[in-house]
Amino acid sequence: MITYEPVGFIHTPFRSLNSIPIQPVAGRNFQGYIDILPEYHECLQDLAGFSHIILIYHFHLSQGFTSQVVPFLDKVPRGLFATRAPRRPNQIGLSTVSLDRIEKNRLFISNIDIVDGTPLLDIKPWIQAADCPDLTSIRSGWLEEKGADFAARFSDNRFTDQDG
Amino acid sequence: MITYEPVGFIHTPFRSLNSIPIQPVAGRNFQGYIDILPEYHECLQDLAGFSHIILIYHFHLSQGFTSQVVPFLDKVPRGLFATRAPRRPNQIGLSTVSLDRIEKNRLFISNIDIVDGTPLLDIKPWIQAADCPDLTSIRSGWLEEKGADFAARFSDNRFTDQDG
Repeated sequence: MITYEPVGFIHTPFRSLNSIPIQPVAGRNFQGYIDILPEYHECLQDLAGFSHIILIYHFHLSQGFTSQVVPFLDKVPRGLFATRAPRRPNQIGLSTVSLDRIEKNRLFISNIDIVDGTPLLDIKPWIQAADCPDLTSIRSGWLEEKGADFAARFSDNRFTDQDG
Repeated sequence: MITYEPVGFIHTPFRSLNSIPIQPVAGRNFQGYIDILPEYHECLQDLAGFSHIILIYHFHLSQGFTSQVVPFLDKVPRGLFATRAPRRPNQIGLSTVSLDRIEKNRLFISNIDIVDGTPLLDIKPWIQAADCPDLTSIRSGWLEEKGADFAARFSDNRFTDQDG
């Protein structure tokens, strides 16, 4: 058993899993902020130099999981680990967002796809050499034919009943 | 308090925090595997279509944290959240690795920077639209002048005393 505690909370315009952008690219026009708990304030030093950060957070509205889900972008059930669905064995979410500025304990972010009130577990600086593979080598499985449509699509209520 | 349990364990050539690659790009020539626990076997369906996956794992050798650390690539203390150091408020690690193939419950991976025996918490498919910002917009803070050197450098023992 591994235990974590929130280092802050994420605030966004999205009050429920309905109508949130399905991934940050679709949330490009949406802004939010993160309030970091005071005891971690000093951990934020030097972070403002990074244009993008990776947020690791707890899907606090999700419970349980099924091994296969029908992703937002597909009509066929896919293995859970081949999707970013919120109901997972460990309810961990991951989003790369733009870091617009920092004011004291508050991080202003955009390109967000996260529900308001989400507990934040960690922040990593986005580093091209670590986080972006050689783009000529990418294969994207079931998503490959759906990719072009990605930024335009928003979530429906497919997961709401399961995640409420 | 948020609790998770391992969904599998990561096996690599790196028995300690000494001499592991500092990030996956430096670990390009190293291979390893992940054994997924049997109850999550069905979650792996469709994953083999993805060339790269994001591993979220627990830094099981790390304890505690300090607000500032001297990163491997620098000589100046930096705020913890502006680094990928393993000693963090929540000991969560994040690596994008190549998924070479899957045989039953075993994932064969390369480009790894992870210590042998690390508990795996989650797998996400790497998706360019979600995980790779517009590369013309990237600022990388303190790393910006060190980036070219990134792939060539390996870890020293800077964190060993703290993490052992």
